[in-house]
Amino acid sequence: MVSGRTDVDGLMCADYRVTMRAGFDSVKALVFDMFGTVVDWRSSVAAEVAVHLRDHVPDLVPLEFADAWRAEYQPSMERVRNGDREFVRLDVLHRENLEQVLRGLGVDPNSIPAPVLDETNLAWHRLDPWPDAVAGLTRLKEQFIIAPLSNANIRLALDVAKRAGLAWDAILGAEVAAAYKPDPDAYLRTADILGLEPQQVAMVAAHNSDLAAAQPLGLNTAYVRRPTEHGPGQTIDLEPTGDWDIVAEDFEDLADQIG
Amino acid sequence: MVSGRTDVDGLMCADYRVTMRAGFDSVKALVFDMFGTVVDWRSSVAAEVAVHLRDHVPDLVPLEFADAWRAEYQPSMERVRNGDREFVRLDVLHRENLEQVLRGLGVDPNSIPAPVLDETNLAWHRLDPWPDAVAGLTRLKEQFIIAPLSNANIRLALDVAKRAGLAWDAILGAEVAAAYKPDPDAYLRTADILGLEPQQVAMVAAHNSDLAAAQPLGLNTAYVRRPTEHGPGQTIDLEPTGDWDIVAEDFEDLADQIG
Repeated sequence: MVSGRTDVDGLMCADYRVTMRAGFDSVKALVFDMFGTVVDWRSSVAAEVAVHLRDHVPDLVPLEFADAWRAEYQPSMERVRNGDREFVRLDVLHRENLEQVLRGLGVDPNSIPAPVLDETNLAWHRLDPWPDAVAGLTRLKEQFIIAPLSNANIRLALDVAKRAGLAWDAILGAEVAAAYKPDPDAYLRTADILGLEPQQVAMVAAHNSDLAAAQPLGLNTAYVRRPTEHGPGQTIDLEPTGDWDIVAEDFEDLADQIG
Repeated sequence: MVSGRTDVDGLMCADYRVTMRAGFDSVKALVFDMFGTVVDWRSSVAAEVAVHLRDHVPDLVPLEFADAWRAEYQPSMERVRNGDREFVRLDVLHRENLEQVLRGLGVDPNSIPAPVLDETNLAWHRLDPWPDAVAGLTRLKEQFIIAPLSNANIRLALDVAKRAGLAWDAILGAEVAAAYKPDPDAYLRTADILGLEPQQVAMVAAHNSDLAAAQPLGLNTAYVRRPTEHGPGQTIDLEPTGDWDIVAEDFEDLADQIG
């Protein structure tokens, strides 16, 4: 599969690698979406749910539970983004959302011991990386500052990184910026913290919406294909839908292209 | 030299290693002072000053310049701590302090090209670690979360770590907490960000004052001896002056004691 991009006329650029590298000349830092881009949240959360909730949720289907939990993610952050509530860490939102999913399945969260729910919530701290992530990041770190720009809170991202061996130079993202993506503050404050202009930062994500939020702010954009983030029947984000600076098959390919 | 501590009666505890380990049982994260504790700021800054300011400062004595620059550090942060000004990053204070030191030497900062001053200011981003720091931290990381709890801003600490190979799990400290040590918020917010009680965090520092601020808040304390931080004539912080949980000769000794 060609790691090219479609130019403004809709034709594949023959010299796309040169074009892409030129656009990346000013980039000092790569900031990464985490859920779906670096780690396979769906399989990981389902495996944890299967262990912790099997005795508490009748007819539990772990992958469906993981999908339902993730479905509460954007709506819960939206209340922070639109000012309905103060910024709270994603751990707090995940815990509230867990109870919401249980209620949706007809299970009273209070019927489950709080320590079980707390441990289940930590599923998000034990997400497995995609197979190429550690090797790719380790290569990219030689040339760039690398950090998550995730909606994860610091401790969540730290636990994932420590367990998986992700060699971040710093843990950035929503908690440090006090703003959830795609709020422009999340991107711009992160660049500012890094002491960089937006043009010196590249957002790496498997989600077109994330790149679409970053690009008009001046950040460079790198799309990484993750066609099974949502399972074998995935229908979204299978292809780049914007004029992203880089399109990569995985992190090794990203390192090949910009390393 | 014995890595013990003096007990409340002023007698050396014969069973100090057992005592110390018991006190550390609950510790999940080690947070480190950076300037002086992890890195040798004085020699590093002097070496940079010698390169960048030699042509601009008559009769330059680099080590004295480094000492004078560092002497402005606490007063400049105090204006933030006491509310005289909003929180600004240490990079900003260092830059202002650089101009202050130049004026003190009778040199008009405007007589020096701004890019030279900017580059000189980055001396603080290129500090060398003490010889035991990388190896000790790498060992400690196997068992604990390790992070700087420094007054450095994120990019400064990141640059030092990337250059020196300090394997932090996250970059914490003043910019993340929006408070300069020894403001209690710097310690307590850091513990909170880590999702830990203060008792689950240990402050590691070569400065008694840092540990004296952390201890009453509930943090564990580890003193590391750095007898040449201020040069061969150092007069302060040569010995532990409080009832710290650990006294270590260096980071390897710290790892020996709590690893």
